[in-house]
Amino acid sequence: MTTTADPRATVERYWAAADARDWDTFATTLADEVLYDLPQTRERMRGKERYLTFNREYPGDWRVRVERIVADRDGSQAAARTLFTVGEQELYAVHFFTFDAQGLISGITDFWPEPYEPPAGREHLVERY
Amino acid sequence: MTTTADPRATVERYWAAADARDWDTFATTLADEVLYDLPQTRERMRGKERYLTFNREYPGDWRVRVERIVADRDGSQAAARTLFTVGEQELYAVHFFTFDAQGLISGITDFWPEPYEPPAGREHLVERY
Repeated sequence: MTTTADPRATVERYWAAADARDWDTFATTLADEVLYDLPQTRERMRGKERYLTFNREYPGDWRVRVERIVADRDGSQAAARTLFTVGEQELYAVHFFTFDAQGLISGITDFWPEPYEPPAGREHLVERY
Repeated sequence: MTTTADPRATVERYWAAADARDWDTFATTLADEVLYDLPQTRERMRGKERYLTFNREYPGDWRVRVERIVADRDGSQAAARTLFTVGEQELYAVHFFTFDAQGLISGITDFWPEPYEPPAGREHLVERY
């Protein structure tokens, strides 16, 4: 098992492995006691084995591309924005990571923000794209 | 005008000023050409004056508390998680920041992820909270 104390490289490896369904490499980025948290559904998953099962079994022919990684100065946390594509559909996702002393991912918090229509009254300030 | 090249301190000042409706201090964190981006509504706002107007005019008696800040090693970007309360309602928000050479915020991308019900089939892996 290769590990690295570089959070940015670890997050890059995590996403490249996920996109490739290379779960063995994916597993090398995770601490055994990794905690996966989804605040929007108030779901929490404990441990590498459950999290690997969850990812292996996740349905759909999704692909993921990393848009931005922010890696903290002290090496203990990172954040990432990704763009998932599932067929014609594009989904934004945002992810926060914490790392243990060995540089393995010890915590993941995912957010899945959905498109919505803006409230009226600010058209004079914004452009739509 | 006080600026700082410490992105974490700038993000802390930005949110403390927003929560206090101290728009003069808030303005000191922003570059004149700041770009505000809302990918969920595909809205974009250009310039400090528009962004200050948008914030000054934003309706509702909201409060904001910072949950986590991730500040990049190279000082050019940061990410933050916040919890907004509007009356009894709690809303998560996620924010990505870029900074110019003077340490002022040059780009803000906001995400507002809403609660949703988890899909069936993963109950054996998760706890709800």
